Amino acid sequence: MSRDVTLTGLSLRDMRQGLDRGDFSARDLVEAHLARIAEADGALGAFVHTDPGGARQAAASVGGPLGGIPFAIKDVLDTADMPTEMGSKIYRGHQPRFDAGCVALARAAGAIALGKTATAEFAGTAPAATVNPWNPAHTPGGSSSGSAAAVAARMAAFAFGTQTGGSVLRPAAFCGIAGFKPTQGVYPISGMLAAAHSFDTVGLFARDTADIAIVHAALTNGTTARTAQAADLKIGLCRTHLWDTVDTPARDALAGAAAALTAAGAALSDLTLPDGFSELTQHRAVVNAFERHGNMAGESVASDRFQPKSRAVAEKGADITADAYLAARRELDRWRVETASIFAGTDLILAPVTPGEAPEGIESTGDPRLQEIWTMLQFPSVSVPWGRGPSGLPLGVQLIAPRFDDARLLSGARLLEELRAP
Amino acid sequence: MSRDVTLTGLSLRDMRQGLDRGDFSARDLVEAHLARIAEADGALGAFVHTDPGGARQAAASVGGPLGGIPFAIKDVLDTADMPTEMGSKIYRGHQPRFDAGCVALARAAGAIALGKTATAEFAGTAPAATVNPWNPAHTPGGSSSGSAAAVAARMAAFAFGTQTGGSVLRPAAFCGIAGFKPTQGVYPISGMLAAAHSFDTVGLFARDTADIAIVHAALTNGTTARTAQAADLKIGLCRTHLWDTVDTPARDALAGAAAALTAAGAALSDLTLPDGFSELTQHRAVVNAFERHGNMAGESVASDRFQPKSRAVAEKGADITADAYLAARRELDRWRVETASIFAGTDLILAPVTPGEAPEGIESTGDPRLQEIWTMLQFPSVSVPWGRGPSGLPLGVQLIAPRFDDARLLSGARLLEELRAP
Repeated sequence: MSRDVTLTGLSLRDMRQGLDRGDFSARDLVEAHLARIAEADGALGAFVHTDPGGARQAAASVGGPLGGIPFAIKDVLDTADMPTEMGSKIYRGHQPRFDAGCVALARAAGAIALGKTATAEFAGTAPAATVNPWNPAHTPGGSSSGSAAAVAARMAAFAFGTQTGGSVLRPAAFCGIAGFKPTQGVYPISGMLAAAHSFDTVGLFARDTADIAIVHAALTNGTTARTAQAADLKIGLCRTHLWDTVDTPARDALAGAAAALTAAGAALSDLTLPDGFSELTQHRAVVNAFERHGNMAGESVASDRFQPKSRAVAEKGADITADAYLAARRELDRWRVETASIFAGTDLILAPVTPGEAPEGIESTGDPRLQEIWTMLQFPSVSVPWGRGPSGLPLGVQLIAPRFDDARLLSGARLLEELRAP
Repeated sequence: MSRDVTLTGLSLRDMRQGLDRGDFSARDLVEAHLARIAEADGALGAFVHTDPGGARQAAASVGGPLGGIPFAIKDVLDTADMPTEMGSKIYRGHQPRFDAGCVALARAAGAIALGKTATAEFAGTAPAATVNPWNPAHTPGGSSSGSAAAVAARMAAFAFGTQTGGSVLRPAAFCGIAGFKPTQGVYPISGMLAAAHSFDTVGLFARDTADIAIVHAALTNGTTARTAQAADLKIGLCRTHLWDTVDTPARDALAGAAAALTAAGAALSDLTLPDGFSELTQHRAVVNAFERHGNMAGESVASDRFQPKSRAVAEKGADITADAYLAARRELDRWRVETASIFAGTDLILAPVTPGEAPEGIESTGDPRLQEIWTMLQFPSVSVPWGRGPSGLPLGVQLIAPRFDDARLLSGARLLEELRAP
């Protein structure tokens, strides 16, 4: 991956500063990114559609907090001026009438849409053709494969993804960038493909969480989260019940992040998840299957043109009864609110984000379990890059906050990021 | 309104029985309903689109628990074979590629779609042209105006609506039929226009809750809720903090329903909402405005073609910050789960559903507050018709259950319905 400090090599905040100072124009920025896409995306496969003409036109008049900043959009989010194909044959050529809410908010803030990014079919597990920008023999993760790869390969300053299990945080970790899943519902859901609505959340990719904080503020009419003071933070180091799935390099990354926070003055303590937590994944599976089955009921008339993995998912929930579904929802909701028992005496949880580096091959997008145990409770979470593994691919760690503590989460992530060895 | 016992006069369960016995065919049923629509809908304005050809074709081969049962669909729910116009000029001629999940589940269960029903613009407050079937000088309620009117006027055995404030229960009460809003998320949300996703819920209209229980079971792979035993029920009679908005006839209806339940052997007690409950409506307003603004951000590029009421709603949330939104969400979520403090010692709450009969005029769809105080907490609720007011228009009462207790709610509603004077 190129490391030249060109326009595409700038962070979003440096793009912002350069634009404001007149060092370059929005058009310069758009052209640089279009050139980068033209140069690199043939091998990467991050984009399924680009709109150079639209981007150039948008660059002619920019204003707002994201004025002139180029971004990319996972292809399960509607766009009024580009097709939206859900990674599926059955949506080929599908042209929505209006932008998804999140896309429209980004554009209203001045950001410039470059194109649509590859997604696993229906934001599920049947993979896109995108490869990992660090090594094309490895998966970029999924389902937001193209958005993560595009940002990592400096084809866009930020990108939208969606997460139902681990579809933002996992590809962020595998591609060595920051991924953010806010509290469910913070970003609009209009024009987003519904997968499992108890979990579906629009999320963000950017070079780092400092950039994510800027985009988040622009989308939510908020203020940009500042870097937390280490002395103010109580961090719970949580290895989770899935610790035996985590390899040594990923364990070392977690230990390194924990040591850096401790050295900076944060209060770290080991956090053990309460009894019963590990069983929640079974309830998650019931809710996920029931909701996906219902939400795909319309598309399922064309299920002979689904990829087999998607067909299996759509069919799986057909036998689940309303009683079983509601019982599972009840358990998950009880735990969502009992944050006192999970976040015992801590502000943020520090946990592994993936079992290790991105696996070889693109048939699988990797193991979602370390991400989805938090998503199932609608907790906001962030993936922060932390070192490399034995194959030279990125590793990351995860920070998790109680619901509604999105600002504190981003502040803590910024701190962690600043403690990272350059 | 015609009271002839024709095919359209049958309850859904009698249609089911007649079809099963071969007393009439699905085609007979479809023709009877199409004739009823042709005869009566010119004056009523319940439908914005009908599909006689599609309905006849579907009637040729029916199977499943709802096989041959004709239904109608609020025009904010996607249909693959009919336009979906959201009650708005900006969606004129809009043709989705696939059915909304709920529509597909109904069709998969054998139900026959007759057409799309009139909705307030974007399921908001800018009214449809539908009139009340009991008196055309009065509103049918909204935003699911056409669905309620269609079922009340015997143009369909059941219909889908959506509720964000009171858009199912209010028109059900105003039109003298049963309306059901399940626990949020029980029915699929795919292909539903997003209004305010913290509250949006797909719901059902039918002649009575016995019919609703059948449809609910078919949609959720469940069993049909039986009529509750009065002796098993602890009912909390809750006048709410909005009692001074309720007129004498509606108060009498509530008292009548309470007396009937007591006479049947249910344990009734007065239930006072805990301190702070009334302030939740302010939090609801913040969440509603913030989410509607974001979800309408795509459509808002065409806001000059919105009705003024919709434009005001879409603009209202623009100034709300993420912090204010999240603080409001936090409060609502705390109360959602603290059901022990609301449902103190009771299984179901019995409460007023509207301030009185449907108001005169169709410029307003009526007061949503008595419905939305429960919707904001995602509690399932039912409107059961109960008598008439001084203008001869229907009155109703409301039953509310804790989240996830949908089956108990329908059982209790069936009991209440059976206790009603014929």
